[in-house]
Amino acid sequence: MEARIITIVGVGLIGGSIGLAAKKRGLTTSVRGLGRSRENLQQAKSVGAIDEIHLDPASALKHADLVILCTPVDQIAEQVLRFAPLCKHGAVFTDAGSAKGHIVDSIEGRLPEGIEFVGSHPLAGSEKKGASFADAELFQNRCVVVTPTAHTQKPALQTIIEFWTALGARVRSMPPYEHDQALAITSHLPHLLAAALAGILPDSLQSLTATGFRDTTRIAAGDSELWTAIFTHNREALLNAYDLVDARMNEFRRALQEKDAAAIDRLLVQAKKNRDALDG
Amino acid sequence: MEARIITIVGVGLIGGSIGLAAKKRGLTTSVRGLGRSRENLQQAKSVGAIDEIHLDPASALKHADLVILCTPVDQIAEQVLRFAPLCKHGAVFTDAGSAKGHIVDSIEGRLPEGIEFVGSHPLAGSEKKGASFADAELFQNRCVVVTPTAHTQKPALQTIIEFWTALGARVRSMPPYEHDQALAITSHLPHLLAAALAGILPDSLQSLTATGFRDTTRIAAGDSELWTAIFTHNREALLNAYDLVDARMNEFRRALQEKDAAAIDRLLVQAKKNRDALDG
Repeated sequence: MEARIITIVGVGLIGGSIGLAAKKRGLTTSVRGLGRSRENLQQAKSVGAIDEIHLDPASALKHADLVILCTPVDQIAEQVLRFAPLCKHGAVFTDAGSAKGHIVDSIEGRLPEGIEFVGSHPLAGSEKKGASFADAELFQNRCVVVTPTAHTQKPALQTIIEFWTALGARVRSMPPYEHDQALAITSHLPHLLAAALAGILPDSLQSLTATGFRDTTRIAAGDSELWTAIFTHNREALLNAYDLVDARMNEFRRALQEKDAAAIDRLLVQAKKNRDALDG
Repeated sequence: MEARIITIVGVGLIGGSIGLAAKKRGLTTSVRGLGRSRENLQQAKSVGAIDEIHLDPASALKHADLVILCTPVDQIAEQVLRFAPLCKHGAVFTDAGSAKGHIVDSIEGRLPEGIEFVGSHPLAGSEKKGASFADAELFQNRCVVVTPTAHTQKPALQTIIEFWTALGARVRSMPPYEHDQALAITSHLPHLLAAALAGILPDSLQSLTATGFRDTTRIAAGDSELWTAIFTHNREALLNAYDLVDARMNEFRRALQEKDAAAIDRLLVQAKKNRDALDG
């Protein structure tokens, strides 16, 4: 992959890690950070995640080859549509949003000739926030989903796949709404359950929590605005996923009510089998 | 605390850690392991968690000062009642079970004169199993709940509190059923949610799980038989806890159905506030 100018919009944990990782691997001549807060951008520059600080989209996007949106999911489509006309012919946009269907729908068919968008979702991150937690190895061996459609130009798709692969990721391609159904189960539903559980903890029981409660609720410490946007963007799929876990929880309830130890054990064995199949 | 003979019944992760911790701190002249499997006991001895292997209760309990049951919750009361007549006057029993009410009820008033039982629950452990994971520091700065009743003899209670304190734990005293209500929320309900979530994961989505799913479901890898016994022993309190989280989940569902982003954000802010108040 040749060296190029990369503009990262929104330089927090994910954006900062992309900058660090791309620079470390020599994928870029210059990483530009575009944002609204000079302080955030300064922090990103001080940890080496970006080379240039930009508050003005026009200067940030001039000559850029690759533009990566790492902003909340409810801002991505609007920003892509607003920024695309400021870019040179041949520029490729991607993003790091956790829900893809509405974003891809909002952008497709509305970009200027010669500007392409390919949706991405790196399955990496944490409940931490900010470029000070950026990590050049964040994407190493992690899955990144790209979500092309029938209208996606192959060279642009290839560029994005090569980029994530160069950062060490395993890239998987799937349609936007298939991604959203899957991630509703593997990411958004866990967040909802963690938040529901954390939300009902009375202060008086804090000292009676141990590793189990803490692991199970860890992601509930994530940024609430970001997650409200994700829940809202993927509400249909999340409601479907909710019904799945609700039905399974009701099987537990029924087994408890009926003192059916065999049924409880069967449910726990199934869960253990599924969890043991995952590493880490 | 004076050196004494300690018998640990069931030498897995918890029992093994108690043995290691007591020996390291010079609290014992001898740690005896009592179990059904010579292989398990041999493993515990090889990691230094016990000094003696016993398959026969009579030899394991002769002259023992302190007897600690680290067996599944559905075995503890029966074993205490069966083992107590084999002990010397002045022996004190405790346990490490995660549900206390039924155990304490089953034992109280049924022990021979001069033998005491005080319920304990160390809030430590993991989804790992076996003495090979034993850790002399497992109880350091962890909470151990002791569950005396109006009938508990003060010297026996003092012995048990001093023992856990000597292992580095912070000891908290509360009535058995108050413990069970609390732990239903802080431990048993998280296990149920983790198991429900892990249980619905299709194999095809394994590769689309990341840190969030893995943290949230980690405890579902715990031993299913142990947890079936805990769920069954604490079913009333667990069903109450279930209703609490079910109601909170329904608030999320309603907010999603009504596209009420403000309500979603309010729920997530509350959850984040509660989670941020916990360390680790």
